[in-house]
Amino acid sequence: MVDLTQLKENEVFMAFASYATVILSKMMLMSVITAFHRMSRKVFANPEDCASFGKGENAKKFLRTDDTVERVRRAHLNDLENIVPFLGIGLLYSLSEPDLSTALLHFRLFVGARIFHSIAYLTPLPQPNRGLAFFVGYGVTLSMAYSLLKNKLYL
Amino acid sequence: MVDLTQLKENEVFMAFASYATVILSKMMLMSVITAFHRMSRKVFANPEDCASFGKGENAKKFLRTDDTVERVRRAHLNDLENIVPFLGIGLLYSLSEPDLSTALLHFRLFVGARIFHSIAYLTPLPQPNRGLAFFVGYGVTLSMAYSLLKNKLYL
Amino acid sequence: MVDLTQLKENEVFMAFASYATVILSKMMLMSVITAFHRMSRKVFANPEDCASFGKGENAKKFLRTDDTVERVRRAHLNDLENIVPFLGIGLLYSLSEPDLSTALLHFRLFVGARIFHSIAYLTPLPQPNRGLAFFVGYGVTLSMAYSLLKNKLYL
Repeated sequence: MVDLTQLKENEVFMAFASYATVILSKMMLMSVITAFHRMSRKVFANPEDCASFGKGENAKKFLRTDDTVERVRRAHLNDLENIVPFLGIGLLYSLSEPDLSTALLHFRLFVGARIFHSIAYLTPLPQPNRGLAFFVGYGVTLSMAYSLLKNKLYL
Repeated sequence: MVDLTQLKENEVFMAFASYATVILSKMMLMSVITAFHRMSRKVFANPEDCASFGKGENAKKFLRTDDTVERVRRAHLNDLENIVPFLGIGLLYSLSEPDLSTALLHFRLFVGARIFHSIAYLTPLPQPNRGLAFFVGYGVTLSMAYSLLKNKLYL
Repeated sequence: MVDLTQLKENEVFMAFASYATVILSKMMLMSVITAFHRMSRKVFANPEDCASFGKGENAKKFLRTDDTVERVRRAHLNDLENIVPFLGIGLLYSLSEPDLSTALLHFRLFVGARIFHSIAYLTPLPQPNRGLAFFVGYGVTLSMAYSLLKNKLYL
């Protein structure tokens, strides 16, 4: 077995691991919220999903789109589009020996901004709440990317 | 060159690498299945894709949506939404020195569940086949997240 | 603090970090392009986004889909579907001690192909420009997956 004491003693990496797990768990919650709205509003995308509500033509009326379900799906996709770069860039950034307090600031801002983004999207709060939340998360990821590329580029 | 013998001797990490590669390759297969159905059914999303089938107004009839193509695209998106958390949380979990047999159980269940999910989505099998496959994969990822956060939170 | 000198001296890993950061930044650009087109064409998906353009029924006319916006969104989703496997498989591949020049060839081909893919999608260039770009990126990821699984499978 490898001696991973090194990595476990890397506080930045351990902090990244915690924040990444929290924000990924939040993202996974979106699947459950979508499923909840599909069930409670009886809105399905696949014929086999509403088979228990009726047969044949009767079942087809459940195959529709619904504003609330589409809203959750857009929020979920926006999460994916923003959390994937955070994971990739954040992992590499964590391994580049950044200052602990700077790194924590990045991780906290990102996780806070994305949680607020979901609240603003699902409530929905009036703009520019969601827009600001998006740009804070976006800026944090860009700042980590800049810090990575500035140090040294190996292209 | 760095001595990566350490990581190569970490059996949990090597197992994670293998399972992650397998499930990502499976996910990539969805692109090919989408392309196959688009070609065989002549269903396209972009005007330039069907330029060889006709010009002008004649080409527009290929710009439509098709149940089978949309089904594959939904399966692909569901893969993305579930495999991204598995990759992020699983990587951190692999580095947190879990018990090898417990880790293998997690990876195997996840990969098995996601492969079955795709089969259930594309066949399509009647529910609750797809629902169960989804929740097994979901539960495995949550279980790894719980095990990560339980050990120690660095927030 | 952990001694990460090892990882920093791993040229393949540092190259992967650079290319991954570049391609993720490019992917993030797609969000801004979508937002730009939504603003300039006044095409929105959420009622709260166009509240400043009008109230009530008047605002509803901005809730529509637009070919250009949908095109950028498809390009963004295609990026996600292809960059996620590259990140996962590429990270594991970088840690598997590949030959530096082979690894660089993989990373450069992938990043070049994906940047060209976006240009081909958004211009749009006639096919098979986009198709070729897609398959080059796809082939690079598969080649890394093959090289990983060939070495040793831990299933």
